[in-house]
Amino acid sequence: MKSVDTLITHARLLTMEGPGVGYMPDGAVAIKGDTIEAAGPSEELQRQYTAQRYLDAAGDIILPGFIDAHIHTGLALLRGTAQDMEHWMQLGIWPFRRHLSEGAAALGALVNIMEAMKAGTTTFCDYNSGMNQILPHYEQLGARVRAAETIHSLPADLGPLEPGELYPLNDTVGAERLEANAALYDQWHGRWNDRITVMFGPQGPDLIGKELLLETAHEARQRGAGLHMHVAQGDREMEQMEKRWGCRSPQYLDQLGLLGPDLMAVHLTEASASETELIARSGASMIYCAGSIGIIDGLVPPIAAFLDAGGRAALGSDQVPGNNCASMFNEMKLTALFNKIKQGRPQAFPAWKVLRLATIEGAEAIGLADTIGSVKPGKRADLIALDADAPTLNPVLEGPVRNIVPNIVYSARGSEVRWSMVDGDMIVEHGQITGADEKKAIKAAQAAAEACAAAAVDDLRESPLKKWTEQGYL
Amino acid sequence: MKSVDTLITHARLLTMEGPGVGYMPDGAVAIKGDTIEAAGPSEELQRQYTAQRYLDAAGDIILPGFIDAHIHTGLALLRGTAQDMEHWMQLGIWPFRRHLSEGAAALGALVNIMEAMKAGTTTFCDYNSGMNQILPHYEQLGARVRAAETIHSLPADLGPLEPGELYPLNDTVGAERLEANAALYDQWHGRWNDRITVMFGPQGPDLIGKELLLETAHEARQRGAGLHMHVAQGDREMEQMEKRWGCRSPQYLDQLGLLGPDLMAVHLTEASASETELIARSGASMIYCAGSIGIIDGLVPPIAAFLDAGGRAALGSDQVPGNNCASMFNEMKLTALFNKIKQGRPQAFPAWKVLRLATIEGAEAIGLADTIGSVKPGKRADLIALDADAPTLNPVLEGPVRNIVPNIVYSARGSEVRWSMVDGDMIVEHGQITGADEKKAIKAAQAAAEACAAAAVDDLRESPLKKWTEQGYL
Repeated sequence: MKSVDTLITHARLLTMEGPGVGYMPDGAVAIKGDTIEAAGPSEELQRQYTAQRYLDAAGDIILPGFIDAHIHTGLALLRGTAQDMEHWMQLGIWPFRRHLSEGAAALGALVNIMEAMKAGTTTFCDYNSGMNQILPHYEQLGARVRAAETIHSLPADLGPLEPGELYPLNDTVGAERLEANAALYDQWHGRWNDRITVMFGPQGPDLIGKELLLETAHEARQRGAGLHMHVAQGDREMEQMEKRWGCRSPQYLDQLGLLGPDLMAVHLTEASASETELIARSGASMIYCAGSIGIIDGLVPPIAAFLDAGGRAALGSDQVPGNNCASMFNEMKLTALFNKIKQGRPQAFPAWKVLRLATIEGAEAIGLADTIGSVKPGKRADLIALDADAPTLNPVLEGPVRNIVPNIVYSARGSEVRWSMVDGDMIVEHGQITGADEKKAIKAAQAAAEACAAAAVDDLRESPLKKWTEQGYL
Repeated sequence: MKSVDTLITHARLLTMEGPGVGYMPDGAVAIKGDTIEAAGPSEELQRQYTAQRYLDAAGDIILPGFIDAHIHTGLALLRGTAQDMEHWMQLGIWPFRRHLSEGAAALGALVNIMEAMKAGTTTFCDYNSGMNQILPHYEQLGARVRAAETIHSLPADLGPLEPGELYPLNDTVGAERLEANAALYDQWHGRWNDRITVMFGPQGPDLIGKELLLETAHEARQRGAGLHMHVAQGDREMEQMEKRWGCRSPQYLDQLGLLGPDLMAVHLTEASASETELIARSGASMIYCAGSIGIIDGLVPPIAAFLDAGGRAALGSDQVPGNNCASMFNEMKLTALFNKIKQGRPQAFPAWKVLRLATIEGAEAIGLADTIGSVKPGKRADLIALDADAPTLNPVLEGPVRNIVPNIVYSARGSEVRWSMVDGDMIVEHGQITGADEKKAIKAAQAAAEACAAAAVDDLRESPLKKWTEQGYL
């Protein structure tokens, strides 16, 4: 008998190994330290292992934790203030954002991370100004994170802009932001047994000068750190690119030699068919944010074409002002449904496909395939348990049609998450966050949001939502 | 001081009265018996009323309970067995349905109703064969229901049909079903203080003979009972109509004199622009089932055009094999997002509009506007309380942009429902069903579903989901 720290038995286990979902009807997982030692039939593992801790998962569905491959947790205090409107960024976000300190943003982030964890997210790619103040929250909560500073050259005193107006770019600002990202790397990369890793985050090809973008890429490549960047994220970006650089984002990045396997290209909302193919073939991955782009733009980016061209993709929740939630159940469901509607074909994006995007394929797309994304010996023990006896997952049929995966994707709400672990540590237990006081966090975020909203009053004159509020529609 | 049974105070109250959402920041509701006696500022009502029971709703958002205007709870045992595929009905549903007794169906219905109630649904329009066995569950759980038997003329021994094959119709069967609906009316209509009312439910113009449809309408009109019917629900229906009757469903119903204010026309998936307008102008209402039609067909029915033509509309969850859930949070969100995507306009279907469809406008569309749908003196006390301190609803901003409604629609998961009442009676408390044992119901449904699935094996040869199950994709 070999000895391990934890032995989970009698689970309905989705390993996400192989071409599908790797289902085992009475599965077990043995965990030693932070690592999966073995996965297999309960009977077999019970014969082979003794453990410090036994988790009887009869009545649970166990699967790899979800990967939210793109989130701006620092915008969480603005939840619900920027949707159902045109010019989301200029008229919705910026009037508030000018009054949002990095300290306040971090208070919102804490609630946002908790919200996502309670719906089974174990890994985040988080992308903000002031990550330095947000990463301690990840450390406290225990979630896995790939972090980047947003590197942009927008002046701090940027006033309201007219839609279509060329942004002023000041690369002195940008250089400071790059320096902040490098400092973030030095301070945090690899911390806590690699639970925290750092990428580089140019905010978009339109929001930074050319030399500085190249320098950012150089710094990232020197460290093997990965580039996380919005690309072709809207007609706004494309308009800015054509006005300033005389070409569209994908061509621009291609010319600069920035399309490649270390690029995580976020959104691609406005990428044409040939641009989508160009990026996919370069080895860059695509991060698709279904809910956010659906709400903000009423659009469905070309993830189907990207995958068809052989590209690797992951899903992200983006940010809560304009989504308005952080839940990979939401992103999986919307990815499937939006693409069915875009194609007019119910067969498009079946449940198993989107579950793969949120787990094993997502891990590949963010460069963590060796570490997470499936239940496989040698990978980290990042697992979640769903209550199979929840009404939303009832009944559970093993055959002739197994309905577990479709019901996770199309029916589960998030509250089915019974526990969640990262590196074998419980970060959610009995559906509750273990590492922080939720009520206290919510109270602090509430106060900070009220202060930010009060400061933004004068900047919101153009917001249709302000008018709706006054007229009683909100 | 006047005396009432219940006084709810200090709520963030959405009355849904007036053109918008009728928000009150510190609102109170006085309830006497089953009826709302008064709604207004807490300070005012506290001066005017004493109560048997005080509910302090500080930290809660109170609003009218949601209306699920179209659901087949009797299909709940088939959750997750029919999505991501073509020919949903023929290859997905029917192979199981042949082996689903009315008794077994009612066991599934019980879980399905609980699931919806836990997400804030207080009123259902439920439409099944064997409603006689499902209505006792509503009585036990305390939810409000408008019920109809599905009246169709499909023979009981109907074998698998090829897509495109004209269904055999046997109006002897249909006449029995009409009789069952009339018996349901006699036995249940008006029971429990009108909490249960009965409509008539021809399953679709393609699924019943012409004379029998006219007779059904006559029986419904004689009783003032309302007709609840699938109309233009798919290309399958339209193909059958043209083959059998030489015209499409809307023209057919128009010629028969069946378009009018007592018709709830469900789906309208295939209605053309002129057909949509014809139905809207007749005074018939439209029930839009976003999730179900999105999954089953990859389509977005013409609810925008229907509303533009002045029609009244409500939302429904339809059924869990092909949706796969029963939650009005899901339907509100998908309604907004699908229509934004259909129109490519983020302004389409703002949050307040879909919240109205799930409450006050839904009540109008199903003929209960005098009874439910808003917090108004004289209406029944059908209310829900959402936990405003849930991470998904944080922060709560009163201004300059009030974010409560967008976050209910776009962020809430369902688990924010703290309590729910119908006619002033608590049917959900602390997020749990008060009227039945959930675990016991789930166990019974599970056993019944397994038996049905085992019996269906031979009929499922053509199902792509069966192949996916065998290949490890499910």
